[in-house]
Amino acid sequence: MRSYYKTNEWSVIEEGFEPQKHEASESIFSLGNGHMGLRANFEEKYTGETLQGTYIAGIYYPDKTRVGWWKNGYPEYFAKVPNAPNWIGIHVLVEGEDLDLHTCKVSDFTRELNMKHGYLERSFTAELKSGKKLRVNARRFVSMVDDEIGAIRYTVKPLNFSGEIEFISFIEGSVVNRDSNYDEKFWEVLNTGAEADLAFLHARTRKSGFEACFSMMVEVSLNGKIIPATSQSLLSESYAGKSTLVSVSSGEEIILWKYAAVLDSLNYTHHQIVEKCKQSVRRAFEKKFDRLFDEHSAKWAVNWTNSDIIIEGDPLAQQGIRFNIFQLNQTYTGRDERLNIGPKGFTGEKYGGSTYWDTEAFLFQFYLSTESDHVARNLLIYRYKHLDKAIENARKLGYHSGAALYPMVTMNGEECHNEWEITFEEIHRNGAIAYAIYNYIRYTGDKKYLAEYGLEVLIAISRFWKQRVNWSERKGLYVMLGVTGPNEYENNVNNNWYTNKMACWTLSYTLEAINFVKKSDPDQYHRIVQKTAFGFEPESQAWQHILDHMFFPELNEEGIFLQQEGFMDKEQRMATDLDPSERPINQHWSWDRILRSVFIKQADVLQGIFCFEDEFSTDTIRRNYEFYEPRTVHESSLSPCIHSILANRIGKFEDAYDLYLRTSRLDLDDYNREVDEGLHITSMGGTWMSVVLGFGGMRIREGMISFNPHLPKKWKSLSFHINYRGRKLNVNISEKKVHVSLIGGEPLQVEINGNRVQCVQDT
Amino acid sequence: MRSYYKTNEWSVIEEGFEPQKHEASESIFSLGNGHMGLRANFEEKYTGETLQGTYIAGIYYPDKTRVGWWKNGYPEYFAKVPNAPNWIGIHVLVEGEDLDLHTCKVSDFTRELNMKHGYLERSFTAELKSGKKLRVNARRFVSMVDDEIGAIRYTVKPLNFSGEIEFISFIEGSVVNRDSNYDEKFWEVLNTGAEADLAFLHARTRKSGFEACFSMMVEVSLNGKIIPATSQSLLSESYAGKSTLVSVSSGEEIILWKYAAVLDSLNYTHHQIVEKCKQSVRRAFEKKFDRLFDEHSAKWAVNWTNSDIIIEGDPLAQQGIRFNIFQLNQTYTGRDERLNIGPKGFTGEKYGGSTYWDTEAFLFQFYLSTESDHVARNLLIYRYKHLDKAIENARKLGYHSGAALYPMVTMNGEECHNEWEITFEEIHRNGAIAYAIYNYIRYTGDKKYLAEYGLEVLIAISRFWKQRVNWSERKGLYVMLGVTGPNEYENNVNNNWYTNKMACWTLSYTLEAINFVKKSDPDQYHRIVQKTAFGFEPESQAWQHILDHMFFPELNEEGIFLQQEGFMDKEQRMATDLDPSERPINQHWSWDRILRSVFIKQADVLQGIFCFEDEFSTDTIRRNYEFYEPRTVHESSLSPCIHSILANRIGKFEDAYDLYLRTSRLDLDDYNREVDEGLHITSMGGTWMSVVLGFGGMRIREGMISFNPHLPKKWKSLSFHINYRGRKLNVNISEKKVHVSLIGGEPLQVEINGNRVQCVQDT
Repeated sequence: MRSYYKTNEWSVIEEGFEPQKHEASESIFSLGNGHMGLRANFEEKYTGETLQGTYIAGIYYPDKTRVGWWKNGYPEYFAKVPNAPNWIGIHVLVEGEDLDLHTCKVSDFTRELNMKHGYLERSFTAELKSGKKLRVNARRFVSMVDDEIGAIRYTVKPLNFSGEIEFISFIEGSVVNRDSNYDEKFWEVLNTGAEADLAFLHARTRKSGFEACFSMMVEVSLNGKIIPATSQSLLSESYAGKSTLVSVSSGEEIILWKYAAVLDSLNYTHHQIVEKCKQSVRRAFEKKFDRLFDEHSAKWAVNWTNSDIIIEGDPLAQQGIRFNIFQLNQTYTGRDERLNIGPKGFTGEKYGGSTYWDTEAFLFQFYLSTESDHVARNLLIYRYKHLDKAIENARKLGYHSGAALYPMVTMNGEECHNEWEITFEEIHRNGAIAYAIYNYIRYTGDKKYLAEYGLEVLIAISRFWKQRVNWSERKGLYVMLGVTGPNEYENNVNNNWYTNKMACWTLSYTLEAINFVKKSDPDQYHRIVQKTAFGFEPESQAWQHILDHMFFPELNEEGIFLQQEGFMDKEQRMATDLDPSERPINQHWSWDRILRSVFIKQADVLQGIFCFEDEFSTDTIRRNYEFYEPRTVHESSLSPCIHSILANRIGKFEDAYDLYLRTSRLDLDDYNREVDEGLHITSMGGTWMSVVLGFGGMRIREGMISFNPHLPKKWKSLSFHINYRGRKLNVNISEKKVHVSLIGGEPLQVEINGNRVQCVQDT
Repeated sequence: MRSYYKTNEWSVIEEGFEPQKHEASESIFSLGNGHMGLRANFEEKYTGETLQGTYIAGIYYPDKTRVGWWKNGYPEYFAKVPNAPNWIGIHVLVEGEDLDLHTCKVSDFTRELNMKHGYLERSFTAELKSGKKLRVNARRFVSMVDDEIGAIRYTVKPLNFSGEIEFISFIEGSVVNRDSNYDEKFWEVLNTGAEADLAFLHARTRKSGFEACFSMMVEVSLNGKIIPATSQSLLSESYAGKSTLVSVSSGEEIILWKYAAVLDSLNYTHHQIVEKCKQSVRRAFEKKFDRLFDEHSAKWAVNWTNSDIIIEGDPLAQQGIRFNIFQLNQTYTGRDERLNIGPKGFTGEKYGGSTYWDTEAFLFQFYLSTESDHVARNLLIYRYKHLDKAIENARKLGYHSGAALYPMVTMNGEECHNEWEITFEEIHRNGAIAYAIYNYIRYTGDKKYLAEYGLEVLIAISRFWKQRVNWSERKGLYVMLGVTGPNEYENNVNNNWYTNKMACWTLSYTLEAINFVKKSDPDQYHRIVQKTAFGFEPESQAWQHILDHMFFPELNEEGIFLQQEGFMDKEQRMATDLDPSERPINQHWSWDRILRSVFIKQADVLQGIFCFEDEFSTDTIRRNYEFYEPRTVHESSLSPCIHSILANRIGKFEDAYDLYLRTSRLDLDDYNREVDEGLHITSMGGTWMSVVLGFGGMRIREGMISFNPHLPKKWKSLSFHINYRGRKLNVNISEKKVHVSLIGGEPLQVEINGNRVQCVQDT
């Protein structure tokens, strides 16, 4: 597959304007800074197909859930991420004629996402219907330093005419979501206003009552000389803007700088938000574009020092991994423990911007390994703070005694997804949340976390598993009926191997954690026993009994862990048997057909093997991989990364590389033909794992970090940075050697291909 | 359980007004005539809780289906039955003070549904806040003779005052559905108008574009003397009415007659409907109330002759069965082959008024046995006419070569339900549609129906089963994965015994039907082969192979047919283990918990045994009944009837009676605490079966009608009428004897308790 975008190790570049690719490019070229983000919509008017998208972290709209088939236990709402008022707009009127790339002739169009410095830049020549030609360049960024600020530099040069150009810079509050069911608006504008040099718009989300204020200021220069402010205010109930008229001659250059501030009610009260927003934009205006940009770019340099991966010899892979790391850093910064990571980040509406198990299962490792520990810890505390709501959620479903079921999808701890087969049955998420605690402690060594927060969560989740299984008289074992595993192309199956495995592991780890806290911190143990009303022996014995008597479906002679009971009754077809025109099957087959087919959406048994790799021999891993990989269609973005890591583990290096490219360039090459809807942000953590855990072969076992790398043929070298227990390590792998250097922190023993070496800092 | 309503063999009577029971009573006292119907809303203003409901057969609103989790194959819309403009309204203002039963003191309140003559009557004394007292009597009916006509006689007598009373008689077009998701209106009013003595309102449903016109005329008498028309017209965009002012003295009597006509676009064009509607109401007005009522009552006398069941010695059972028969006759008359029977008939919004498998599985036998054959035949032809859409529906899901999947829920042949586990998986409905053809021919002997219509439907359904099963290498048998059986408390199960059974039976009956048509009507056979592109031997051999190699889950040693694979892994609890406060579980348990429990919503394996009773020994039936009955919570109205019939079959007569009472008085005694939402119309056919097939023991085998009756202890006698192959039979069963008398038609041999007797007409 030839990439539509130019391959460049630090940039994604589009050359030439193809309107039918525009919505896809709007996703690809998205910008964000953890607090807000936006798709690569054009500043100027565009009457072609476009998915307008401006998003603010933590703000959601509770869409109605109660429908005809509503059943007890269904959540009250489905959270959607509301497309926020658009603050980038700069309409350009050339002697009264609209600049609109849909209606004029466009040439020399380029669009660049510069990942090194974190900006979007676009240049083009437009020939209007009147024959007037102009050259435009627009650069913008949302600041990584002051995450409430965005800035645009918009340059226009008339090529064959002289005359007046009007720039209408505005904030548009009359915005809709594409996923609104009844075209209802999610925002209402409370107020708009303008002062001599500034305009603002204050809006509130319907139902959920979040507020946001948007302010803007503009400055214009002609041939490098600032033009004194002569803007006129344009105001309506849902619109605030400034019009600036500039007389210009052919060949002259106008630059318009637009500064914007976006503040919201997560951080400001109703009464202060407008004033604070005006102050913020004034501060930005005073700093000017270049200084704001330099600060921003310097922060990106730090990000890259922490998390860059360098792949020599494979520009496609290099661009792919950088694109993923760039997006991960844009989406979540770990500054605010109330926030989390939506499947599409700030790049689209789909999946409602809410938190899924993706965070713990696919993203956690990236932040754990590239940021200081508090970032990963914030992700754990996010769930700790939702524990009461998870207990309440379980209670609504009929569980009791402090059992917790974390929501499948959430904005604030409440369940907000409404398919029973997901909400009620995809309970393995509870296991992922427990596993992240284990993973955090394994990586950081911070065992105190158990006493402080972790154990309470583990006990509540173990109680859930205890109540969720039932004893089968027929089998003389515990069974877990009616679940949906990670492979969502199956629903309501019995004894999903992965879920049963996760449940047992949680019970076992909780027992271990209880003993640890009891011994190491009796005061905290006492506090937790009180708080959770822990039932001592009887409760832990019941867990142990389940552990010792859980049913796991297996193909006995062949040593295959069966995805679920009855799996072998399906018609056993291979993904390669599928006609390419039928793929992805989720776009070509009815749901009915998908459910009955053998085809697997994403790693399920293999996800479990990935989590508990050390329990299985290489042979067992290979047998299961060879059974499941041919049946897997990888129609979840979360799938190829796990397969790639396991392929490396068992020495199927070509598979590993093919699967890696698929995850790494999923969005850039639009494998699943849906990138127009937004990027697969949460899978990007999986991509990172497939490099560092897969090709880098990084593992942590009993406090020892080790590397068993294997480079794909094409790669000359691979190097990456790791934050590990207060050290900064650089791992450099080439065909001939593996070098781990200590860049910061105390000396450390590491294991490379089975040999222990001492790393000390170069002096 | 003491009934809230008074027990009377021909009436349902409510004495005293209990506002919290009002919505339930609005359902119970509903009226209908096959073309239209309405809940027992008050004519006068009522500001208390009420579910306004006026419905017109065949009119639906296509509610949006496309939601976030929309998947390929989902239908485009969910059909709702729109609450139509209200034509019964008569507001009463006593010296400017509203008569409103919610705000005044009510005494001597009675409400009667007279089933013999088919009317609703209500009387009460109201004391207004001003202290004025008046006595009111209101009777209304919707004509069974002219099904576009309704009439109300509204009588008012001031008891302690003299003064002016204003009657505002109106048609209200600004109506909503309670089940509208966004409070959107389903109707828009096109026009309203008034003439000297008449008012009308012309409306159209949004999206679906059905039109209906409502017209009304009023007449008023004082002390028996008609008052010359002095009405004032009241018109707005969505309202048309007449105001009549009457001066009255204490003790005098005012009668207001309101006549209404309701015409719709199933029968009239846009251009003619208003004029025709005015003509209709004028005709009714000229006939006057008493004559309209007498005609109507005479038609009810005919209905009762055809379908009455008389139970002596058990007034509760008598009232129960009459209530059921009354509602069945109100809901469907068989006049229009485009219509069918919604689960709530004309009594509520729930389930969208659409056609379910209920028609074939539970209602068909009633119409087959109490009406002339064309009524049941119309029900079959309804499906025949939808065959192309059923093929199209299957095609959307990935089936091919003329396979048909009839919709689970439909208004016009298109699927319009949107839960995948129902729409895609509850495929046993296809079997019920095939079975109704068999049942019709078995009962009527009309084997020509196969060549004319039936065989095409059977072939298309058989093709569906062929494609729906798959070969399990592991089992060496065919399996049917991912289905939902009649017991909807299980979803997406493998090898539901009932569905597998239905599939095999269809294949076998289709093969038989093909051979029959081939021999008996070669021309038609040729036509059908051409039309369906029937594949001869290879196609029929493939069906035979499935027939011979289908997997059926069984508990082998115990001779129990297992509801589905894995059923015995569930915790085996009995319904009697449930705390009564938890029942019905669908109102107290989460869906999650229900799905994983052993509890059965409605007959599933037993439904199959009911259909194919002759294949099983009494012992087998008993074993399965004894296994399933204790696990069944009967939370579908369609459940107890089948259990009751089987209980009679195996001699569990007390069970049979208990279950019968439960189905017979389901709504009158509100077993499932939901009668406020409407009546369980479709289950009423099951009730009828539980009397005639259950206690009456009626069966048809090879053209011979037989009776093996057993009366419940309490019953002195049971008698019912049957239409059978051109004969009218009266079956009279008492403890001592069974007497079958021929009331009309040729002599006939019947079998009574195993003895054949010749029935001849008394002369």
